[in-house]
Amino acid sequence: MPKEPVLELTEALIAQPSVTPADRNCQQMMMNRLEKVGFTCTPLPFGEVQNFWAERGETGPLFVFAGHTDVVPTGPLEAWESDPFTPSVRDGVLYGRGAADMKGSLAAMIVAVERFVALHPQHTGRIGFLITSDEEGPAVNGTVKVVEWLRQQGRQIDYCLVGEPSSSESLGDTIKNGRRGSLNGTLRVKGVQGHIAYPHLADNPIHRALPALTELSQIRWDEGSEYFEPTSLQISNIHAGTGATNVIPGVCEVVFNFRFSPMVTDAELRAGVEHVLKGHQLDYDLTWNLSGQPFLTPVGELVSATQAAIRQVTGVDAQLSTGGGTSDGRFIAPTGAQVIELGPLNASIHKLNEHVRVADLALLAEIYREILERLLAAADH
Amino acid sequence: MPKEPVLELTEALIAQPSVTPADRNCQQMMMNRLEKVGFTCTPLPFGEVQNFWAERGETGPLFVFAGHTDVVPTGPLEAWESDPFTPSVRDGVLYGRGAADMKGSLAAMIVAVERFVALHPQHTGRIGFLITSDEEGPAVNGTVKVVEWLRQQGRQIDYCLVGEPSSSESLGDTIKNGRRGSLNGTLRVKGVQGHIAYPHLADNPIHRALPALTELSQIRWDEGSEYFEPTSLQISNIHAGTGATNVIPGVCEVVFNFRFSPMVTDAELRAGVEHVLKGHQLDYDLTWNLSGQPFLTPVGELVSATQAAIRQVTGVDAQLSTGGGTSDGRFIAPTGAQVIELGPLNASIHKLNEHVRVADLALLAEIYREILERLLAAADH
Ligand SMILES: [Zn+2]
Ligand SMILES: [Zn+2]
Repeated sequence: MPKEPVLELTEALIAQPSVTPADRNCQQMMMNRLEKVGFTCTPLPFGEVQNFWAERGETGPLFVFAGHTDVVPTGPLEAWESDPFTPSVRDGVLYGRGAADMKGSLAAMIVAVERFVALHPQHTGRIGFLITSDEEGPAVNGTVKVVEWLRQQGRQIDYCLVGEPSSSESLGDTIKNGRRGSLNGTLRVKGVQGHIAYPHLADNPIHRALPALTELSQIRWDEGSEYFEPTSLQISNIHAGTGATNVIPGVCEVVFNFRFSPMVTDAELRAGVEHVLKGHQLDYDLTWNLSGQPFLTPVGELVSATQAAIRQVTGVDAQLSTGGGTSDGRFIAPTGAQVIELGPLNASIHKLNEHVRVADLALLAEIYREILERLLAAADH
Repeated sequence: MPKEPVLELTEALIAQPSVTPADRNCQQMMMNRLEKVGFTCTPLPFGEVQNFWAERGETGPLFVFAGHTDVVPTGPLEAWESDPFTPSVRDGVLYGRGAADMKGSLAAMIVAVERFVALHPQHTGRIGFLITSDEEGPAVNGTVKVVEWLRQQGRQIDYCLVGEPSSSESLGDTIKNGRRGSLNGTLRVKGVQGHIAYPHLADNPIHRALPALTELSQIRWDEGSEYFEPTSLQISNIHAGTGATNVIPGVCEVVFNFRFSPMVTDAELRAGVEHVLKGHQLDYDLTWNLSGQPFLTPVGELVSATQAAIRQVTGVDAQLSTGGGTSDGRFIAPTGAQVIELGPLNASIHKLNEHVRVADLALLAEIYREILERLLAAADH
């Protein structure tokens, strides 16, 4: 009996140890398959990063599958139950680095498109693939550069499905239809160093910072919305002191991060933080790094087609979510595209013994194909 | 013209590079001088540390000069205007490591005693010297051990003058008649580590700790007293975070120090801190290290004799202070002795280009001798 085709391709991709920014042979394998069913493929390497664009169809709405062939490092090999780059099926579960994030999704996309094209060789619109080998890394020479190249080519994406593992408990239970923004702040609160026995000759920057940081940690920045959790500030790092127990340090360094909804702008958050710091009369330096604006794809053609496809294949009513970390969707959404993320269960991603249920691979390909049916099947079919 | 004898001996001591715990030849030089004027000297080495006890007289009140021959490291040699272990007089100022802390005081003690004994060979009471080479270091094998040895010998100190540099603007303007206690706390506030995009799955120990630390930093622990500044808490170190900007850390580590007056006990401070931490429902580990109890020598024979001697020699009205860091006085006071500290200006101690005014060396010897006059001169003189 031949192997189930999504499983077979997922295994072949896992066998390529493509830790960021390596692609190994993954993208070539995908392009070979796509060219056989009428896609025109364009490799777009930038620096060490491999990317490609593939497209089928001449006119009409452009539906794009987006994803990445790179994977995060394995961690200690001896802690894996089987080698992370030797795909292994046990009890109906496929183990291997990238199984869930996101080589299973890539294989499901390929198989879905092969089947869809076989059924609808004259489909309406256009189907694209935007694949990078640097999603897990700095993400500088990956999707950003391809999006810029598409803009230069005059390509406008209408619908984009990113294959990130979005599911929580069962396949398709969650669609990501947006992401919160991410804003980092690096704060240096300045005081005057001195001996701890002479506090009046020093100015303790820890004591200075504490009330302001307490206030910042307790502010409710917004109430969130139908689609977004309330904006969250988290202090990730705080460091002050030389290690000596008798020295008041001169500086207290703090790193914090906002995950923010579109109910507030990054400019408002910056101003709010400065207002608190100034209100406490702090002497400080503060630098900002905006790593992603929030984006949202409200309910519309893409979300509706995806929910209907999931319901048809699995019987599950998918909920919408904008939680979790950032993804390359943040680079595609600003072009005006509708962007969603849909993929396998995410419980094991970036962990030891990453895995995906074998049955979910075939189901995911069917869901992807059903989405294409709803959006691009020929009117005459 | 022969060199002024206090300056001469101070220079000889500075020329010995006796960085803690080294003594080099300092204590032998002192013992040689003391034995010539009738002292019985007992070297008391413990481990790497050199100490000695010297005593003259058979009965009556025991007056002890206490001090240390060790010095702190020089710091970068090229930043000194002259070599720290080559005594150099420029513009009436003697430069060298230990000039102020406290080889000048040691030389003044020796010369004061030589002159006093010459004037009062049959003085009342007893004169002692308690000298260590580990005051600036761990202070484990120094004064503590000698005090224990004295206890075993049945020696009870009545008056103790520690030669620490107590003066602020002019020689003798300040006498230390006590010291605050010092209590260190090391706190680990525990949370749950997690990804910053999923704050509800983590428990940020920095956010947990902030309100409690703010409260601790703002508490007024006591109002101080006639002799003591109010108790002060200073956070010297705070560390949390892995350096990653997307990880909520699992632990926040805090080191703090109390300098406390006798208006509050270390047990009360410990209980007060625990009360605040528990009030904020923190999950924490807390360890304590008491490095010194506060002590006080109220106005009495020793303080009065010292103030009178200073006034006679310099015309200055000495003020009493318990500020500043700890000294070996903390080990001697618990024996029941009256303990004061009196020495040169402390502005340059532990710094580059440490120095003492040449004129102050001779004045300090005169003050020390005048104190002996007041406490131990024979009634028949
Ligand atoms: Zn991914
Ligand atoms: Zn000293």
